[in-house]
Amino acid sequence: MNIVLIDPPPAEAELWYIQEARQLQHLQQHLKLQVGEQLKVGIRAGQRYLTEVVAIDAQGVALKPIMSQPCPGKIPLTLIVALPRPKVLRRLIMDSVSLGVEKIVLIHSYRVDKSYWQSPFLQQLPHYIDLGLEQAGDTIAPQIEIYQRFKPFVEDVLAAQIAAGQTAWVAHPYAEQAMPHAIDHPCSIVIGPEGGFIPYEIELLQQNGCQARCFGTRILRTETAISYVIGRLYQ
Amino acid sequence: MNIVLIDPPPAEAELWYIQEARQLQHLQQHLKLQVGEQLKVGIRAGQRYLTEVVAIDAQGVALKPIMSQPCPGKIPLTLIVALPRPKVLRRLIMDSVSLGVEKIVLIHSYRVDKSYWQSPFLQQLPHYIDLGLEQAGDTIAPQIEIYQRFKPFVEDVLAAQIAAGQTAWVAHPYAEQAMPHAIDHPCSIVIGPEGGFIPYEIELLQQNGCQARCFGTRILRTETAISYVIGRLYQ
Repeated sequence: MNIVLIDPPPAEAELWYIQEARQLQHLQQHLKLQVGEQLKVGIRAGQRYLTEVVAIDAQGVALKPIMSQPCPGKIPLTLIVALPRPKVLRRLIMDSVSLGVEKIVLIHSYRVDKSYWQSPFLQQLPHYIDLGLEQAGDTIAPQIEIYQRFKPFVEDVLAAQIAAGQTAWVAHPYAEQAMPHAIDHPCSIVIGPEGGFIPYEIELLQQNGCQARCFGTRILRTETAISYVIGRLYQ
Repeated sequence: MNIVLIDPPPAEAELWYIQEARQLQHLQQHLKLQVGEQLKVGIRAGQRYLTEVVAIDAQGVALKPIMSQPCPGKIPLTLIVALPRPKVLRRLIMDSVSLGVEKIVLIHSYRVDKSYWQSPFLQQLPHYIDLGLEQAGDTIAPQIEIYQRFKPFVEDVLAAQIAAGQTAWVAHPYAEQAMPHAIDHPCSIVIGPEGGFIPYEIELLQQNGCQARCFGTRILRTETAISYVIGRLYQ
């Protein structure tokens, strides 16, 4: 946690309050926060501030804002990813958010177990987003979209974005062309499930304008592939 | 698990055997392996083969090699990383190995809790390496070195490598110059602990020839930073 995210305080408030149990526990047990110390705080969907701790009591931590600080910018990436196992979902969302992905799209695919769509972890997305924002010092949540049917997503949603000029690449270990380095334009990256997309899915993506690109012959876990690709594509 | 790693069988053996409980469980429960199917197998520190399953019984899986397959190459990277929390160590080693890192060096740093060095997880490194190799389809374990004292490591070991012509960069969010993209030479990357290196450590690294490089203003988790940097540096 490199900043503490709080809901927007009333405009006239002189003091702000941290009252979420998870955050208070972290501040007390890990940081051993004391009155008089400085603390970085982000207003959800707003600015980031350096603050001073003016009181710590049973109700929470009271803060006085000192000065605003710049938020890191997003990268113009739409990450389209086959819904992973529930245990992986938390890390995948948290990492993608901390890396600054602008939009995350979760899709179905043949090798996604249908039970994953019933997982209670899917209800926790806002919490995972908070963890990623607090890790990276960001305050702006990415857009999240969910499509439980592969074919309509590719033929209607993705194809329309590509027709409108968006570059889209699917990470595919058997593609001949390599994923580029250091691009300076927005793009969409499609990442398959454990075991990869089936040939029909790769073909449907390609027929709809999505280009297959490899990055070496090593097969990576989904989370590893995501940060690898982002490091490669953007400054 | 994209290949199954086994110890080198006797040179005259016509059949090879998988007998490790972890691997057998995966093959039976996840892949529901049947006699007659093909299976990718790697000989530890040796070649990779396509094999055919000729028998499955209480003692294990018997295989007949069909043909050898190419192993993915390593990247000429020495990854020097402050020992992470025990729970993170498994993923960090597994990911670094699956990404093809040639050498991994675990070091102490001011913000590494001393208790981490007593963790039983440190005894599990060979197992974590196996997991990374089996993920990536590789058979060659990276070199692993461990230094429990920061200053002697930097002044003696790292400085000597730099003096011998090796480029070394420390990932540092406040550096002015950015980490490059797509290099074509070996290098060492130094990654700090949660909370980062302290200023004294950054200064000592720089005094010994290690150059500080940033990659954006976002603060990433160690594991995320490693795959991000590797995607950025190498093809």
